[in-house]
Amino acid sequence: MSDALLEAVTNGISFVDLGRQLNVGMPQSPNHPQFWHTLPRRHGDMVRADGGSAANDMITTGTHVGTHIDALAHVSQDGKLFGGADAGQSCLGGKYVEHGVHTIEPMVRRGILLDAAGYLGTDVLEGGYEITVADLQGCLAAQQVELRAGDVVLIRSGWGQRFAEGAAYVGKDSGVPGISEDGAAWLAAQGIHAAGADSIAFERLAPGGGHAALPAHRVFLVENGIYIIEALDLEELAQRRIHEFTFVLVPLNIFGATGSPVRPLALVAA
Amino acid sequence: MSDALLEAVTNGISFVDLGRQLNVGMPQSPNHPQFWHTLPRRHGDMVRADGGSAANDMITTGTHVGTHIDALAHVSQDGKLFGGADAGQSCLGGKYVEHGVHTIEPMVRRGILLDAAGYLGTDVLEGGYEITVADLQGCLAAQQVELRAGDVVLIRSGWGQRFAEGAAYVGKDSGVPGISEDGAAWLAAQGIHAAGADSIAFERLAPGGGHAALPAHRVFLVENGIYIIEALDLEELAQRRIHEFTFVLVPLNIFGATGSPVRPLALVAA
Amino acid sequence: MSDALLEAVTNGISFVDLGRQLNVGMPQSPNHPQFWHTLPRRHGDMVRADGGSAANDMITTGTHVGTHIDALAHVSQDGKLFGGADAGQSCLGGKYVEHGVHTIEPMVRRGILLDAAGYLGTDVLEGGYEITVADLQGCLAAQQVELRAGDVVLIRSGWGQRFAEGAAYVGKDSGVPGISEDGAAWLAAQGIHAAGADSIAFERLAPGGGHAALPAHRVFLVENGIYIIEALDLEELAQRRIHEFTFVLVPLNIFGATGSPVRPLALVAA
Amino acid sequence: MSDALLEAVTNGISFVDLGRQLNVGMPQSPNHPQFWHTLPRRHGDMVRADGGSAANDMITTGTHVGTHIDALAHVSQDGKLFGGADAGQSCLGGKYVEHGVHTIEPMVRRGILLDAAGYLGTDVLEGGYEITVADLQGCLAAQQVELRAGDVVLIRSGWGQRFAEGAAYVGKDSGVPGISEDGAAWLAAQGIHAAGADSIAFERLAPGGGHAALPAHRVFLVENGIYIIEALDLEELAQRRIHEFTFVLVPLNIFGATGSPVRPLALVAA
Repeated sequence: MSDALLEAVTNGISFVDLGRQLNVGMPQSPNHPQFWHTLPRRHGDMVRADGGSAANDMITTGTHVGTHIDALAHVSQDGKLFGGADAGQSCLGGKYVEHGVHTIEPMVRRGILLDAAGYLGTDVLEGGYEITVADLQGCLAAQQVELRAGDVVLIRSGWGQRFAEGAAYVGKDSGVPGISEDGAAWLAAQGIHAAGADSIAFERLAPGGGHAALPAHRVFLVENGIYIIEALDLEELAQRRIHEFTFVLVPLNIFGATGSPVRPLALVAA
Repeated sequence: MSDALLEAVTNGISFVDLGRQLNVGMPQSPNHPQFWHTLPRRHGDMVRADGGSAANDMITTGTHVGTHIDALAHVSQDGKLFGGADAGQSCLGGKYVEHGVHTIEPMVRRGILLDAAGYLGTDVLEGGYEITVADLQGCLAAQQVELRAGDVVLIRSGWGQRFAEGAAYVGKDSGVPGISEDGAAWLAAQGIHAAGADSIAFERLAPGGGHAALPAHRVFLVENGIYIIEALDLEELAQRRIHEFTFVLVPLNIFGATGSPVRPLALVAA
Repeated sequence: MSDALLEAVTNGISFVDLGRQLNVGMPQSPNHPQFWHTLPRRHGDMVRADGGSAANDMITTGTHVGTHIDALAHVSQDGKLFGGADAGQSCLGGKYVEHGVHTIEPMVRRGILLDAAGYLGTDVLEGGYEITVADLQGCLAAQQVELRAGDVVLIRSGWGQRFAEGAAYVGKDSGVPGISEDGAAWLAAQGIHAAGADSIAFERLAPGGGHAALPAHRVFLVENGIYIIEALDLEELAQRRIHEFTFVLVPLNIFGATGSPVRPLALVAA
Repeated sequence: MSDALLEAVTNGISFVDLGRQLNVGMPQSPNHPQFWHTLPRRHGDMVRADGGSAANDMITTGTHVGTHIDALAHVSQDGKLFGGADAGQSCLGGKYVEHGVHTIEPMVRRGILLDAAGYLGTDVLEGGYEITVADLQGCLAAQQVELRAGDVVLIRSGWGQRFAEGAAYVGKDSGVPGISEDGAAWLAAQGIHAAGADSIAFERLAPGGGHAALPAHRVFLVENGIYIIEALDLEELAQRRIHEFTFVLVPLNIFGATGSPVRPLALVAA
């Protein structure tokens, strides 16, 4: 076996699961169709003559629920998508042919955790706190890692610990911590490939402000073609101080969609 | 950087996509809710004061559509799931708490392609052809690979080339080629972790027989706890003669479901 | 034309719409899948050679959302449905074959409005207020109508005016006014065919109590085979003091379901 | 009681159900999301402390499945809806605000059955047969009824008997009998309010032609503002020779949709 990757894999690896479990009733943005799972057929409903039976499922869901990735087609500014594509024309026959989630390549890349909450000496940053460029730079220095072009950067505010609280996680009244326009512009300048966070809208939301303005989304999705990953679970990575890892993310290949639920992994050699 | 895996990744890898694109109208079993994707909100439907807008999606689907994995809870025999779990009791509150798809660990493992069609000197095996144990053994020998415990084995019948034909792929009248009870038992004896194929029901279906009997499902899911992956696209792997690779599969973490759509990858060092 | 009904109809009738409009985001119980409507195909997505095009819809929804009717199969008590049917056995192959909504006959019957709020001299009864048997009897006397066997009785608490407020209508904290066990028993004794109200759960809910106990549901659905209609709009009927009318309700004929969205009408000769 | 309608109702009426039962797997056009019904919660899944439990449903469906009505917004011609409304502008925020199904008033009107198959001396008209204006006029004469402005006209080809056959009912290869452009224009000239048929596309489909051209839809929906009702069950009406009746149809009030499943009734005095 001469494949260095397979050799590393067979020598032993472990993974940290960065995705949330998909449960009926979990917190999600009211802008998106609610996640539901139900069993049309359970064992016993129909048993074949040979004693076998099969159970199955029905799912209805938005694509921006649970841990998910935003395709570039998700956001437009002044009628344009990334690269100047016309936001209206990009939708052909009811599908975002251009910049839909089917255009996102699966990611197996260097991943970097920026544990902003840890760097700032707190467990959970406050609702509405803006993680600044200085915070990002200070955090990198403290963690002794550097960004490289093509990296996937995951920013931990600690807010993910509120996922189990439901509506508090959405943070309509409290606001939500995160980077904003400046942080996004600085990260884009480093040439990153994608950015993620442990909150539902990735970027800082002002208290009471809701989703009225999403400048980091504009900077990443429209201006720089950088993907955004939301509602990550970054707690275990932070606790184990795994700041550099192999990041794996495989979006569902849904033709023409604006996003996909995902279950990203952080892989490390055992 | 002392992580051998990350080093292999950053030295350069490439991947082969083994998943089918999810398209409205693609072939699927009529037993499962049909895949649908639609855009509730398109760009232009609601534009914010700052000129930004967001488009989104609604999905309804079964979990056994497109390329997908069967959880152990999918099939029961004589009222039992794998390990003797009671098929009725395993479903608590409308969720398969035991053996649901949330219990499948993400896979980053050695993968083996068994190109049965190639070995048998044909492009597509005939509907109803049973890939025998001798075929599997001969194919391994011809490919000069050996199975190891924990491997994921992907069996190519060539039937996947019919995916674009729609109903022909489902093969109700023609039958579908694949392994059957004997092949499954032999593979299980090798200690494999999961098995996949390029057809919709994984195993051989007799012409006109439909899904009346699925012995390989019973052997794998109920008797041996081996996962089944269906509707794979194995054409590129076969054409490039990639018979050994790093197999990556990350099921959606849907609590209590019997399966999940997946997009598996075969990774190779560049 | 010798048909008395058709003669009455052609001589002129008018109707009051008792159903709520189905809108994405309307208030509903979190126990039931959320109502969503989206357009997979809009005009312009696909235009035929002759210049014609068709737009269409996708709906996902619970059946107990918007104005809806409860089938007898909706509620069980101590493992039994109405008439002693076994709650488990009544569900065959994933369908409530017995007492499902397909067994409810369309209703064209005498309808009676009991304007409890009006009778009690208020616009909206308070959250948690129990409409008593004395209230029901006093209201009937004040309105100078009497109940007859086979009637459909609609009870107005005024709470329906809160529908537009969203969560306030669900009334989790405030409670919701309505009849309770005694009122249900008295109405059942009058031989009514169905009962409705302008609140989401039909019966009185205690402040903070949620749906922890629903005795009127038990009395009607399990003990007496009387259908329940929820989330009616009774404001116009009350304002126009239409206390007796022809009530029309046609459930969707969904095989095996526990309820159906409906749009009941009150018809009156012009 | 001085209400003539209520008096007629209480003197006794009977109804004929003109709607198809909604069943998973029933025939429908592949252009529309498939009807699915499933039970997320069955009795026994969650039992309250007092021994009560509630079962519920999830539905996903197109609106043009089963027996259904087409809103005027369903079809456009050369970019225009009925009355010259712009087909693009009529869709605001993802809803057909103009001519959506929420704009259809519930119908309680004179209904007329035109039993074309019976008039032409056959049980089922052949696939692709065009019911001509002469057929319509001859049928009216034979039945000794006349059309009046405001009527709802139901045309029976007998094709509805094929509903249970599944794909044969859709009639892709065989074509489907029905009226075409001339018949629609003649009926529109009589001032009818709505027209229905016992086939899936209402109008004549040529063998092998599919839905490539639908001229009667254009005449009714775009040029005359006449609603179309599809997939009716007209067998009992024909067998009982009920050619004139009170027609009741109440669409679901789905804001902005292009159609609605319905369950129309034919009422007659007992």
